[in-house]
Amino acid sequence: MAISETERRAMSRALELALRGPRSRNPQVGAVLLSPEGETLAEGWHHGAGTPHAEVDALSQLAPGAARGATAVVTLEPCNHTGRTGPCAEALIEAGVARVVYALDDPGDVESGGADRLRAAGVSVESGLQADDARALLSSWLDVRALGRPRVTVKWAQSLDGRAAAADGTSRWITGPEARADVHVRRAAADAIVVGTGTLLADDPALTARDGDALHAHQPVPVVIGSAAIPNGAAVTRHPHEPLHYATRDLGAVLDDLLDRGVHRVFVEGGPTLASAFLAADLGDEVLVYLAPTLIGGPRLAIGDLGVDSIDAQRRLSIDAVERLGEDLLIIARPGARPEGGH
Amino acid sequence: MAISETERRAMSRALELALRGPRSRNPQVGAVLLSPEGETLAEGWHHGAGTPHAEVDALSQLAPGAARGATAVVTLEPCNHTGRTGPCAEALIEAGVARVVYALDDPGDVESGGADRLRAAGVSVESGLQADDARALLSSWLDVRALGRPRVTVKWAQSLDGRAAAADGTSRWITGPEARADVHVRRAAADAIVVGTGTLLADDPALTARDGDALHAHQPVPVVIGSAAIPNGAAVTRHPHEPLHYATRDLGAVLDDLLDRGVHRVFVEGGPTLASAFLAADLGDEVLVYLAPTLIGGPRLAIGDLGVDSIDAQRRLSIDAVERLGEDLLIIARPGARPEGGH
Repeated sequence: MAISETERRAMSRALELALRGPRSRNPQVGAVLLSPEGETLAEGWHHGAGTPHAEVDALSQLAPGAARGATAVVTLEPCNHTGRTGPCAEALIEAGVARVVYALDDPGDVESGGADRLRAAGVSVESGLQADDARALLSSWLDVRALGRPRVTVKWAQSLDGRAAAADGTSRWITGPEARADVHVRRAAADAIVVGTGTLLADDPALTARDGDALHAHQPVPVVIGSAAIPNGAAVTRHPHEPLHYATRDLGAVLDDLLDRGVHRVFVEGGPTLASAFLAADLGDEVLVYLAPTLIGGPRLAIGDLGVDSIDAQRRLSIDAVERLGEDLLIIARPGARPEGGH
Repeated sequence: MAISETERRAMSRALELALRGPRSRNPQVGAVLLSPEGETLAEGWHHGAGTPHAEVDALSQLAPGAARGATAVVTLEPCNHTGRTGPCAEALIEAGVARVVYALDDPGDVESGGADRLRAAGVSVESGLQADDARALLSSWLDVRALGRPRVTVKWAQSLDGRAAAADGTSRWITGPEARADVHVRRAAADAIVVGTGTLLADDPALTARDGDALHAHQPVPVVIGSAAIPNGAAVTRHPHEPLHYATRDLGAVLDDLLDRGVHRVFVEGGPTLASAFLAADLGDEVLVYLAPTLIGGPRLAIGDLGVDSIDAQRRLSIDAVERLGEDLLIIARPGARPEGGH
């Protein structure tokens, strides 16, 4: 049965509703219930982990029996999984819903199969409506789903020979203003910016995403990792978000807690010790290297030890892009081996 | 007076003759003497430092007075300088030459002025004929002239984070076959390949320029710098050219001796100690960084100390080109500051 214009409009509405929900371990999902005549019976969205899924949120607004023969328009395939809430597919069947139109297949191993279950119960099911929009909406959650943790971008600036500072610790300026502006744009796309206490104490960074002197509309949460306390009056204490401080070296635990707080995208800002720790722990899903055309030499390395004892253990990357930013280069890479080659 | 077709043909011939001379501290120059009727009276070229210049070499083949009224076609402006030989401009005037056609102005401060001197003596002078060809022919000598020493390319391969090897010293493979092939092409364009004894002993390099298993037609002279002896049976001893060994740390003295031997273009192959020494001494006129998309960390740095104590002393470069070579990047840069910018 073809998808109707009313169902298309309802899907656009459901995508709007989805955004009312928070980023969390669960996806942002919206749902609209249509009567057989195409009138909107109820709207729902997922309000966060532990609360009803979008379809159930919508159903819960109706009197028993009121959804009989209705069409459910949902941004994600109804789940087939009993977690803290019951399976949505079952709830829709029990409510007497006659038809389900959804955008995106559920990527999970456990949760998927909702569509099959609905069909087995005689429900008409259509999928793929506005799937690209739904995928864009859930982009960061799909990463989290695939990784089991927030997606981590590790960024650093270095000289051509891999230094982050001169011997005496001075580092201004290595990269140019274009590279700096690019960092701020990428910060604004993250949910959290992470620095080590060494960098916090040395540089007193604001950890805001700025466009010149103006703040970007979205500000990632500032996160400080390390045992030293955040000094009173540190610039980060004036950040629009209260900084999170983890006095631990267990980066996996930090990421897990950040995910609980709805952080899907983490931007590791530095310094060298923290960046190296993320890379050594294989927790860098994307690497951004701002490479300045300068040579510095000496002991202040942008990346320290990674536990690579022998060349067989090197961390091969694939280059996604190389951009010129003023005088500098930005190399964007991600983990991934290439085929064997020469020296 | 317009340049005649006969003079054009004579310039092409003079450029061929120039190549019969060796690369040396002096330029390769060719000359053809034409009778007033346009017949070739004599040909000459510069046979190397301490021998007559091309014009004088041609004049010397004629009986006294035989060049009276002749036209001298020369690839470089006749010199106006008394060195180990007398000034060519004076020799041409004394021989009664009526006209001089040359390709390239002499770039020297001391030697130039020959054209003015000729004109002052009533000689008809034309310049710029096939100047681009002459400039290409003298390209490496023009560099030497400007630098006062051979032009030095410092090449190294490194991981994205500036390492040349893993902690245990293993380094194969960091860059891929395309990068390796590119190195060989660039070696073939050099007059000498230079390595330190550390690299010689560790890697036993052949220091040949190869295309697969075949040798390139031109083979640069292998040069070894360092106090350790070249082992009997080292691969470099089977090089088409006998290796030169300098047991010194005085890189300026090495370059000076190489220039005496006609070396205009030096390719510093490594390893890290020698490359760093050339860079620290400001003796790198071009830098080639083969950058592999891999992270290694640890202590084996591609570039060591450069004596940069504070960021103000960093060695700013300008990027001339960034090339993708298979999975790797080649960054070609040369010394040169950029305008002040941000961090």
